[in-house]
Amino acid sequence: MDNQFDPGLLVRERLKELIPYQEVSYPEVIKLNANENPYDFPAEIWRDINEMLGAQSFTRYPDAMAQQLIRELARCYSVGEDNIMVGNGSDELILNLMLTFGAGNRVVIAVPTFSMYGIHARVAGAEIVEVARLEDFGLDVPGIIRAGESAALVVICSPNNPTGNSATVEQVQAILAGCQCPVVVDQAYVEFGGQDFLPLLDSHPNLVILRTFSKAYGLAGLRVGYLFARPRVLQYLFKVKQPFNLNIFSQTAALAVLRCRDIFARQVAEIVRQREALYKAMRQMPGFDVLPSDANYLMFKTCYPAVKIFEGLLERGVLVRNFGDPLLTRYLRVSVGQPEENMIFLHSLQQVIAELGEKD
Amino acid sequence: MDNQFDPGLLVRERLKELIPYQEVSYPEVIKLNANENPYDFPAEIWRDINEMLGAQSFTRYPDAMAQQLIRELARCYSVGEDNIMVGNGSDELILNLMLTFGAGNRVVIAVPTFSMYGIHARVAGAEIVEVARLEDFGLDVPGIIRAGESAALVVICSPNNPTGNSATVEQVQAILAGCQCPVVVDQAYVEFGGQDFLPLLDSHPNLVILRTFSKAYGLAGLRVGYLFARPRVLQYLFKVKQPFNLNIFSQTAALAVLRCRDIFARQVAEIVRQREALYKAMRQMPGFDVLPSDANYLMFKTCYPAVKIFEGLLERGVLVRNFGDPLLTRYLRVSVGQPEENMIFLHSLQQVIAELGEKD
Repeated sequence: MDNQFDPGLLVRERLKELIPYQEVSYPEVIKLNANENPYDFPAEIWRDINEMLGAQSFTRYPDAMAQQLIRELARCYSVGEDNIMVGNGSDELILNLMLTFGAGNRVVIAVPTFSMYGIHARVAGAEIVEVARLEDFGLDVPGIIRAGESAALVVICSPNNPTGNSATVEQVQAILAGCQCPVVVDQAYVEFGGQDFLPLLDSHPNLVILRTFSKAYGLAGLRVGYLFARPRVLQYLFKVKQPFNLNIFSQTAALAVLRCRDIFARQVAEIVRQREALYKAMRQMPGFDVLPSDANYLMFKTCYPAVKIFEGLLERGVLVRNFGDPLLTRYLRVSVGQPEENMIFLHSLQQVIAELGEKD
Repeated sequence: MDNQFDPGLLVRERLKELIPYQEVSYPEVIKLNANENPYDFPAEIWRDINEMLGAQSFTRYPDAMAQQLIRELARCYSVGEDNIMVGNGSDELILNLMLTFGAGNRVVIAVPTFSMYGIHARVAGAEIVEVARLEDFGLDVPGIIRAGESAALVVICSPNNPTGNSATVEQVQAILAGCQCPVVVDQAYVEFGGQDFLPLLDSHPNLVILRTFSKAYGLAGLRVGYLFARPRVLQYLFKVKQPFNLNIFSQTAALAVLRCRDIFARQVAEIVRQREALYKAMRQMPGFDVLPSDANYLMFKTCYPAVKIFEGLLERGVLVRNFGDPLLTRYLRVSVGQPEENMIFLHSLQQVIAELGEKD
């Protein structure tokens, strides 16, 4: 039996080809690879979370509808409670969107962008139509609308990960008007800059906005994403939602964080200041180009293969993001860290480039 | 646009028909409907969890591979680390199994059983083949093997939810030998009784065992499920796994719980004692039949429609589980609670039956 049984025979070919999202962990490095909030989690909010929980909070199933959290989100963002769904990170919401609309259909993705859209589309059995962004990584709006004609879902990211640039209201309105399918705008980084498209939900029934607590709100470790859409769209997403998708600790933490939004607003303001300082410093150094950014990271390009720079930085204890993406062979992404982390990054980058230059 | 846009046109018919798992919350009741651990979560373990976490645990992405937890699971169960996968509750693992093997294929489910197998199979786009259990709810082994011939996945639950009975080693071995596809045995309740099939993993490459921290280990609120299988099977499941599926708090809590297994072993022993006492008491009362159980719940049948009993109990502040399942129209399931909760349940049940008898 051992030699006969081949589970691969039962797996779809297109799933077999899929290379999963890899996360290698490097201990003891300055971690500027995942666009996380670089500060310690506020101790007072951690205390709040523990106080909000009771002796049976862990032993009982969590509220399947996360009602308290959804009520607070509705209040904060002035939308109806029936416009919101929460997930185990945005990742789960992306998978839910793909399973609901993508399965057996076409999904348009504006690339280069966050790789999980494509991975989840494949997992759900969708056909992926990639529409390349323009040379400056702006959206090819006519191209997206053309591809969207035969699609069941369009996904754009704004500010875009990893390029850092945002879409404009005019672009998003044109795509929403030109497509007869749900258009997902992932706004995971919108707290750091760029246009907030939530006001368009009133006038555009096919708009779906993704948001997260993982970036500005410092809860990457607790996995809380949320989504704004019309009830007509949400009714189908609820069919694929796992009933108890969001654990009670994360529900409570997200609620506690929302109630202390001012703390995170101050952190965000500081991160934006640091981003601008880092951008300015990198612009003045020879050897690389840096793109302006509306997010908490910067994408930059050197004349060397990205992997060389990546490895040189890692040897110096600085972890940045390298892409396996053929559209981004000479690009790297660095998250904005705490001021001293950014200084070490800058200094290390200069050393790496100088060293590579000597070898040429 | 508002009137034209119909997202339903883009959704698969079979998904549109799906009625999601409904969870209505009733505050201020004795909650005997979800097979949870009825005790308070041990305060000392809660302290341990908080001490194991650091100032950046929440702000950083969790370990995608949950290495510490997997190492401890491997140690506890004497299996390889490469035999384990963890999920956001068993629910997520069931969905992963369905997406990996079920999509576009047939999935055999021995019914009546836990409804999420069927729901996730539908979400993944699998064709469901239900094989009815026998009159005593035992497995129809020849029927399952026959159906399994053209299937990509077979799912059985042991002890079975909601009937409480277990499969035998002979039955599971026969199914494993008779099917050329992965056979999932959901052992969510195995700590409370019945055969543990993990030793069969050595000799049967197509065995997949599901386990959970939600029942015996008191972590329903934190959503931690785990799965044992051969690496040849797991390699495909990892392709559909969300990279950061298990948040850091739940990873840490599960690890802390495993390190204090003795506390939960004592709770399990007490729950089993209570189950037997409840079973004996119900056997002696007129008006209903109760089935023996290897789990932390009892299924019982009355001569009245289940919904009448359910509502009568709820009026008295006791919540049990009623099924929408046509195979179980006169059955209800009651979780074993704390001793005083079980007494109130018994007393209330007698009252409800007496009242319904008077009306006849």
